[in-house]
Amino acid sequence: MANAEILSIGTELLLGGILDTNSQFISTELAQLGIDCFFRTTVGDNKRRIKSALKTALDRSDIVITTGGLGPTADDVTTECLAELFNAELALDEKELSRIESYFSRRGSRMPDTNRKQAMRPSGADVLPNPAGTAPGVAWTLKKEILLGAGIDEPERERLILTFPGVPSELHAMWKESARDLLRKRFVEGAIWALELKHYGIGESALAEKYSDLLKSANPTVAPYAGIGECRLRVAAKAATLEAARLLAAPVVDDIRSRSGIKCYGQDDDTLEAVVGKLLIEHGKSLSVAESCTGGLVSKRLTDVSGSSRYISLNLVTYANEAKQNVLGVPFEILEKNGAVSGECAHAMASGVRAISGSDIGLSITGIAGPEGGTADKPVGLVYLGLSADKFYAGRKLTLGDRLSREEIRFRTASEALNMVRIYLLAPRLLETDG
Amino acid sequence: MANAEILSIGTELLLGGILDTNSQFISTELAQLGIDCFFRTTVGDNKRRIKSALKTALDRSDIVITTGGLGPTADDVTTECLAELFNAELALDEKELSRIESYFSRRGSRMPDTNRKQAMRPSGADVLPNPAGTAPGVAWTLKKEILLGAGIDEPERERLILTFPGVPSELHAMWKESARDLLRKRFVEGAIWALELKHYGIGESALAEKYSDLLKSANPTVAPYAGIGECRLRVAAKAATLEAARLLAAPVVDDIRSRSGIKCYGQDDDTLEAVVGKLLIEHGKSLSVAESCTGGLVSKRLTDVSGSSRYISLNLVTYANEAKQNVLGVPFEILEKNGAVSGECAHAMASGVRAISGSDIGLSITGIAGPEGGTADKPVGLVYLGLSADKFYAGRKLTLGDRLSREEIRFRTASEALNMVRIYLLAPRLLETDG
Repeated sequence: MANAEILSIGTELLLGGILDTNSQFISTELAQLGIDCFFRTTVGDNKRRIKSALKTALDRSDIVITTGGLGPTADDVTTECLAELFNAELALDEKELSRIESYFSRRGSRMPDTNRKQAMRPSGADVLPNPAGTAPGVAWTLKKEILLGAGIDEPERERLILTFPGVPSELHAMWKESARDLLRKRFVEGAIWALELKHYGIGESALAEKYSDLLKSANPTVAPYAGIGECRLRVAAKAATLEAARLLAAPVVDDIRSRSGIKCYGQDDDTLEAVVGKLLIEHGKSLSVAESCTGGLVSKRLTDVSGSSRYISLNLVTYANEAKQNVLGVPFEILEKNGAVSGECAHAMASGVRAISGSDIGLSITGIAGPEGGTADKPVGLVYLGLSADKFYAGRKLTLGDRLSREEIRFRTASEALNMVRIYLLAPRLLETDG
Repeated sequence: MANAEILSIGTELLLGGILDTNSQFISTELAQLGIDCFFRTTVGDNKRRIKSALKTALDRSDIVITTGGLGPTADDVTTECLAELFNAELALDEKELSRIESYFSRRGSRMPDTNRKQAMRPSGADVLPNPAGTAPGVAWTLKKEILLGAGIDEPERERLILTFPGVPSELHAMWKESARDLLRKRFVEGAIWALELKHYGIGESALAEKYSDLLKSANPTVAPYAGIGECRLRVAAKAATLEAARLLAAPVVDDIRSRSGIKCYGQDDDTLEAVVGKLLIEHGKSLSVAESCTGGLVSKRLTDVSGSSRYISLNLVTYANEAKQNVLGVPFEILEKNGAVSGECAHAMASGVRAISGSDIGLSITGIAGPEGGTADKPVGLVYLGLSADKFYAGRKLTLGDRLSREEIRFRTASEALNMVRIYLLAPRLLETDG
């Protein structure tokens, strides 16, 4: 099975000025094709180092995919480096030249002379057409003779080089128009089907321990990945066709769903807020939130979901005690005796916001996000959550510790609050025992 | 001059599941220290390939910085690979073990056995402390003897390896707490002083054109960087000492500040929300927000700032028309005649939230974030903002177009709303003419 390597070329990447989203795009595409990618390298606009990185990549990989360095300026040297490495002539491609010229003339301008170099190509290499810009790439199949000449390891194995410009939109267009099919036809036998099962309320190590049996499986493979306060299990199967791969993975996916139960909240692009939204619609329920320490984050996440106006009408950020008292009707006695960061206050806030909004469910969050405001009794990371509904109330206390940043405490608290709504809609009894 | 290389470790990166923001962070930090970074490599969780990538990196670079592979699970093997490559014993660091144990106990749980391996360190390597998580890194200075043993090229040149976990917040905390100083002390001769001047309300190309004279300067250098709805100009000077570099940069910084005027809102880590917070405190004013399409994002961003309870007491997310009417007192006639997405509604919302909260300033946002809900008259991206204060009102209409995502429309709208408060506090007349 052929394996690929990505070589990103550009000093700007190494200076941190831009984020390398191209590598992520190509990685995802290769994974979907089922072509293994074992290495990615980034190198600056320096001919010696580019040639050295190209050689290293060709030594260990069958397919080398480069991005960047195809522009018209002096520091764009990818094509030159390839020609030098393999001692090939650079020849002008008249057809590409006139395509580039017409690219400019369609925009009402004349092609600057510097762009002429974009039509140069090492003899023996094919054009990789660029439907979205001036810089075409090359698709160059390298056979034993030429690999030997450049001193590449294992020259009897054929290699393929594909070059792309660094502009993401051009790379994407070239990939979709020709590169993907070229790779599929030449290298892909069978197909890969993959699914991520998203988990909340279980850590990466606990998940790995729970599924240690599956983690050893070779096909489908199962692997855990950690997120912020949540985890994913990726199930991927290889087979002759996509459908066969899906069928191979299906029993493992079902097994995980059944063993994880309520801890598995969704798959792939699902978010807690989107899942909560879907459940609210299914149950015909509306939700209203009163936040203190999360300051609007829960409301923001809920309304990140397009169409959330179907179940959200009013949320409140009651940051000050007076707002809790005057707007939500939290009794002065609670604020004085228990304080704003207390289970009692969370309860009154949840009931209060439910009453004001007329929503079916009232959710409340009050706590200390830090870094200031903590005390010995009520340290940073102490949070109380409340969920009030018809003849139902559940509270939760979180102690997230003071090592997390304000941002992380707020994000985890918001996730926990959203998950409380999810569990309430699926199995309210679980909240009562946890509360 | 020493040069550095970044090695990102994680199969998930090669599968495209996550974007490698860590490499960008480290690249930026190295550039600010003035340490050249010539290569970045990404490799999966495979011991043979990790060791091979480590060797390649050490062959050509003085400093190798790894991220990832320090977790508790079986596929976290960075430390093991280092020990194997240099034939070093892995020893348990009792001090780190008890730190990890207490990390768990503070959260009310027991450390799983699997986390024990995070306290293992190759003999000869120092701890690189992790103030934000369980996985410490190593700082390992490799001298001739041990480099020879591993077959590294040019063993007479000392090497340094720093390992970091893949979790960005932990990496950042470790970098700031110790790695940055360690690198500066050992490798940086002379000093670089750099400052980013943050701009709002001017695009990257307009900024580049305005400062085309400065962009050519060699020392200090001036470079523009684009952000979401905002831009930065980075001024960096090199000199023998930090103070000399600062003095070299100072006239350029002053020049930019004076030419940019109110469009320059801050520097370095300043955010619009933090600058607004500082101005509110300086002016002794309080603020209250009523949001519709931003759904809590403005409130969230305002309260991202620690200490924001000094000027925020109550914010409202009035998503539904009923909430605008019942809670904010927006007249039914406005909702019926002009609609919720109108200048009239924004005005009534801003006045309403100011009255309810008793704050000095009332800010309102109402619009269509999409992707659904747009009409020919009121397309996606149409937003009205309002700012009400004592004997003052200013409104703004934004037409952000439908090419932006829901997320981007919401973020840009929130920035525009925050910037309105900033301008109101600095030069309210500018809002009147813009309105």
